[in-house]
Order: sequence, then structure tokens, then C-alpha cells
Amino acid sequence: MSENRNRFSSRILKSNKSFIREILKVTGNPEIISFAGGQPDPDLFPVTELGRCAEYVFSKYGSKLFQYGTSEGFAPLREWIFEKYYKNINYPGWGPENILITSGSQQALDLIGKIFIDSGDSILIERPGYLGAIQAFAMYEPEFVGIPLRDDGLDFDFLERELSRLEPKFLYSNPTFQNPTGKTLAAHKRSFLSEILRKRKVLLIEDNPYGEIRFESEAIPSMISYYPEATVSLGTFSKTLSPGLRLGWIFASKEIVERLVVAKQAGDLHSGTFSQILLHEYLETYDFETQVNRIRNSYFKKMECMEKALIESLSDFADWVSPKGGMFFWIRLKNSLSSKDLFEEAIRNKVAFVPGFPFYTDNPETDTLRLNFSHSSLETIETGISRIGDAVRKISKIHA
Amino acid sequence: MSENRNRFSSRILKSNKSFIREILKVTGNPEIISFAGGQPDPDLFPVTELGRCAEYVFSKYGSKLFQYGTSEGFAPLREWIFEKYYKNINYPGWGPENILITSGSQQALDLIGKIFIDSGDSILIERPGYLGAIQAFAMYEPEFVGIPLRDDGLDFDFLERELSRLEPKFLYSNPTFQNPTGKTLAAHKRSFLSEILRKRKVLLIEDNPYGEIRFESEAIPSMISYYPEATVSLGTFSKTLSPGLRLGWIFASKEIVERLVVAKQAGDLHSGTFSQILLHEYLETYDFETQVNRIRNSYFKKMECMEKALIESLSDFADWVSPKGGMFFWIRLKNSLSSKDLFEEAIRNKVAFVPGFPFYTDNPETDTLRLNFSHSSLETIETGISRIGDAVRKISKIHA
Repeated sequence: MSENRNRFSSRILKSNKSFIREILKVTGNPEIISFAGGQPDPDLFPVTELGRCAEYVFSKYGSKLFQYGTSEGFAPLREWIFEKYYKNINYPGWGPENILITSGSQQALDLIGKIFIDSGDSILIERPGYLGAIQAFAMYEPEFVGIPLRDDGLDFDFLERELSRLEPKFLYSNPTFQNPTGKTLAAHKRSFLSEILRKRKVLLIEDNPYGEIRFESEAIPSMISYYPEATVSLGTFSKTLSPGLRLGWIFASKEIVERLVVAKQAGDLHSGTFSQILLHEYLETYDFETQVNRIRNSYFKKMECMEKALIESLSDFADWVSPKGGMFFWIRLKNSLSSKDLFEEAIRNKVAFVPGFPFYTDNPETDTLRLNFSHSSLETIETGISRIGDAVRKISKIHA
Repeated sequence: MSENRNRFSSRILKSNKSFIREILKVTGNPEIISFAGGQPDPDLFPVTELGRCAEYVFSKYGSKLFQYGTSEGFAPLREWIFEKYYKNINYPGWGPENILITSGSQQALDLIGKIFIDSGDSILIERPGYLGAIQAFAMYEPEFVGIPLRDDGLDFDFLERELSRLEPKFLYSNPTFQNPTGKTLAAHKRSFLSEILRKRKVLLIEDNPYGEIRFESEAIPSMISYYPEATVSLGTFSKTLSPGLRLGWIFASKEIVERLVVAKQAGDLHSGTFSQILLHEYLETYDFETQVNRIRNSYFKKMECMEKALIESLSDFADWVSPKGGMFFWIRLKNSLSSKDLFEEAIRNKVAFVPGFPFYTDNPETDTLRLNFSHSSLETIETGISRIGDAVRKISKIHA
């Protein structure tokens, strides 16, 4: 087809092919150990239980499983989510009708971009920030403003400086076990963040896919409990139950939910009926906490295994802070080694990861990289990190 | 939440709440007979067969059912669609990799809007046109240019006049059993349309949700067979199998599919893994033609029943052309009666339909309305049309 017929939109002409997509092609080779993706461990999906629920919903719901549903989502599922995550949010009149079911968190990000961002608007995002959010929002052509992360979360001095010169549409943040860094906004900083945002009347998009996957006993209250009047809260079942069902949600004020519903209807009408009913049946039948505890215990062991392997193989070449939850280590190479150079050497050594640069909206720090530990076995983690160790020694010699 | 925190995008501020959404709220009342929606008859969903497939895929695929998938979609499903619908398209090098699985046709429309439309671009659409397409494209703020429909499809004189003054991004068309009018672009006009578009190098988006639901034995070749080099072909399983699975597809050149995949990844990563595998298992196990024939036979009877009822109750008050497929009658009231006035009277009479105005992007014809026949039983069709007849007699007296 000749170019002059396909006059693409400016938004898509600006979007490069995702580097991560390219990496995932390389890692399709089964000989390569991959720490690149962000996949959960499929052995922890409750397949048997979901199978029993699937059988049961056929007799319980029949043809209703396959008919159109409402754009807002399956009402009993919205009620379950409200009871589980939001009933203690102290904001008058909020209930299950403040929840919109989305086709995964990714769609939540797309819908938020759609209803808020005009081309050229400023939006704030952690630096480095979640790649899926950068990709979703980029389609609406905002000006990204990165707010650096310290070990205890967002750099407030930097944030306040930016807020004194800009009126951003929102701050997008992943405050708990952030992707890609694994960092968490410290509990004592959360109330302070709400004060900064309240003073400037800034909307907060709190994306919390990893909050449940914590390795310490006590949960940190989410930002919406500090700043309910202007927080849009995103959640997902992708990390706790199944990404393949593509089910997440947005909890927000009715004014925002109404706009999101219009965008959702225009975007895909509604999320899958059968998937929503199946998920709800599972949640009503089985103990969600038991399932989440299995994941916490397993990923904690994997995190410890990777930590030990990193200490053995990479101490001399890299720094990191071990995460207290989530699925990732964020590594900074010493002596300004390039993570892209390391990536190329690592692929030759049959191990993959994601170099840090796609997580920056500008001026990437080229010595950073992300390692996923949820998807590999303990043995694979040991072997893979040892291979990265070999690769880093090799490129250090070259650069020495 | 105060207004100054929620500064919505201009696209969403321009989008009114859907009138159809408001109608569907009214029709939630079970006493009201509704010809308003576009739902298939759930009694025709192959629930038993899908139940057997669901059981089988648990043992066949296990945890794979619930893991992340590729943005392009489940490869065997893409192959099935290619074999069924496109293998005879005479265009070099095209294959299953030209297919992107979407979360229903609605998402296909959203992705097409995303990759093609910049604010202010002209796009051509039938007048009246499919509401879901108007809603999806409106999010990207184009200038809609309506091309009137004659009884045998698009008005070519009008089309050529518009093409001589505009360079539209594409023509969106639903050439077979169109929603809302049920009209079909005549076979002899299809080759001529391809010549018009070829001469002006205009991209054609051919949306074909109803092509399978034909009441005559012979299928009309789709537009892509006449104009393969610049047609983007949309299909769906929503009318033949199940809308609740939310599965449709786009078939296009690789250049376009590559851009669509980037937009799909940013939009919802991929469509549901379990749903795709379940659908594919059904298609491999059962005879799709048998299923489609059940639907054709049932909807043909319903169409005939509605036709008879319309002749009895509305001949003096309205004109229409009986559709040769699809799910809708398009009615024009005589004497410039207002379909909105009729709607209000009809609701009092406990029957609903969609007035025609939402299907126009400008200057709506206020004497038109759409009736769905797929979702009601024969008895309900008779009762409902008789009630509309009573309502039209009443408003005719008032206006006489």
C-alpha cells in the first residue's frame, strides 16, 4: 500500500516500536533466561479453582455469560472490589457505583489519558516511570515532566518546584513497590504528599498493581486514604490472580467515572462478560487472602534468591535497594557502565533483562536496568544472575 | 470534587452522554418491550457447546489460559479467521499475520481512530451512520462528512463531489446490511466504488458485522475483494457467536497492522487469553456454518414477522425497505412526524426504539427511527409493533 493512502495520525507517527516488544521477541528463544518481562508465575494461578468456577457459572448464568453487559461492569464484581479495597475510604456517598471495570490496568491508563489529556498538557510522572503508563498517555501527546525518585519515593523538593511553575493535569504515581524501581513512598511521606497536592489542587492517579504483593506483614495505607477528594485509584487482578482475564478497575469520583464510562463505551463497549462473571465467582467461592499469601510467600523467596545471587555476582559492579514487595529489582551499574552494552553481552550469554532507558521520558540514565524475579524458578534465577555476572565482568574489562 | 481539579480534555467535554445509554436505562423496566438495543438473541448462543469447550481447554491449556498473551492475538485464532474470510483475497503476501484480534469491533474502531485521525481531519461516513463508529472516532475530533445512502447504498454523485473538494483520512462504511438502515451496497456498485476510491487514493474502512446474517442464499463479495490494496476490513464474532466474549478483528496491510499493534498495546495490551482460546476451541470443534444458519433462519423469521406487523400497523404512517440481512428495520415516518415525539408516546405505551437522530453527525432527519428485531420473540414483535401503531395514531391526531 503506498504511503500517500496511509496518512497516519501524528500521535502514532511519534510512537516508536516498543523496545520491550523487541526484547520479548529475543526472549521467545527458550534457551534464553528472561528477567525482562513482568509476567506473574503461572504456577500460582488457581487454575483448578477457576476450572470449577467455570463449570459452575455455566449452570448458574447460562446464556447471560455471552451477552452484552453494561459499560460500568458486572455489578457484583464492582461490589466485591468496593468492599475489599474502598469501604474504609472516608468520603461521603462513595460506593460500588464509583468503580468502573476496565480491560486490565492498561485500559484504565488509556481511558484516563483520553478524558484528561489534551495535546501539550503537562502531566507529572515518576522518573523512572511505568512504561505502560508512558505508552498509554503518549497517545494523547502530553508534555511529560519526570519527578525523580529517592529511596523513599518521590523527591518532594523537585515536585514542589515543578508545581510552582506548571499546572499539570495530574500526577501519575505508582507509590507502592513501583515499576520499574520497586521503591515505595514511605508511610510518613504520604500525608505530606497529600498536603502538597491539595494545596495546588492537583489530581493524583494512584496506580497500585503491586500493593498486595508485600513481603512485610503490615500494609501501607494507599494514597487515596490520605487524599480521597482528588485521587483516582487504579487496581488490577493481573498480579494476584490472572493477567489473561484482562480485568482491572478505576475507583474515582462520580463526576470522573461518568466521563470514563463515555470513553469506555467508545473504546470497547464493556469488558468481557464471561471473564467478569468467572472472576466474581472465584472471589465469592475461594479465600482471596489465601491466594495472595501464596504469591507473597513465593515471590519473597524468589526476591531473596535473586538478592543473594546479585550479592554474589554483581556487588562489585552494581548498586541496588532490595524491594519490599512487587516483582522487580532496579539495578544501577557502577562506573557508568552502559546497560545497553550489558544487554547485548547478556544476550550472547543467554540471559535477558530490560535496560532502564525506556522508563525515562527524557534524558535516560543509561546505567540502569530492571530485573523481574516473579516469572523464573529459583534455579533459573541463580543461573541467570550468574550469567549476567559473567557478562558484566566482560564488559567491565573492555571498558577498563 | 471541585471543577478546577478535574480539567477534562476537550474531546470528552464535547461528548454528550449517549442518548442510547439513556434509552437503555428506560428499557431496563421489564414491562417495556424494547426494539432499541442491538443485542443478538441469547437463545442462539451455543452455550452447551461453549461449556464443553471450556471444560476441555482447562485440561488442554491449563495455566496458559490465564497468562499474558501477545498484542496481536492468539495465533491459531488469527489463522482460523484468515482461512475463513480472507484466503481468497487476491493480494500478494497477505496471511494470518495481517490480522489483529481486537476486544470487539468497538475497539477496532477506537484503534483506527487512534492511528489515523488528527484533530480536524475529514473522514467520510454513511449518513445515517453506525453510532458506535461515530462515538469511537469522535474521541479523535475529526470533521465528519456524511455521505447519504440511497436504497442501493452510498450516493456516488455526492461521494465524488466531496472527494473533489476534500482529502479525507478514510471512508468508513458498513456496506452490507448497514446499521442503522439495513441497506446494502448493491453488488454492481461495489466495483465502481473501488474505482472511485482508487482514483482518489482513499483508504476504505469496511466494517462488516452483519455480512453473515443474510436472508438470501448468495453472499455479496465484501469490498476488500474489489479493493484489497487499501481496504481495512473489520469483523466480529459478536453477531454470530457471542458479544460477551468481546472478540473481533482487523485485517489490513502489514504497515497498518504494525501501527495498530502499537496502539493496541497502549490501549489494553491484548484481548483476553481465556476468551480467545475458548472461542478458537469452539471454532475448531463445531461447525460454524451450522451455527450461522440457525441465526439466519431465526432472524429471517423475526424480520418477516416484524414486516407483517409493520404492514398491519404502520403502512399509513411510515415507509421502509425490508432488510435482506442484519438485525434492523429503518423507518421513515410520513408527514414529517417526529420520531422523538413518537418515542415519548411509545414509552407511555410500554414500547421503545431508537429515534434516528443519534445516527446523524449533523442535521438529523427527525422523522426516522430504528427497530431491532433480533432480540425479541415473535409474539413480542407483534405486540410491540401494534403498540407503536397505537402511539403513531395518537400523535398523528395531535398533529393533524
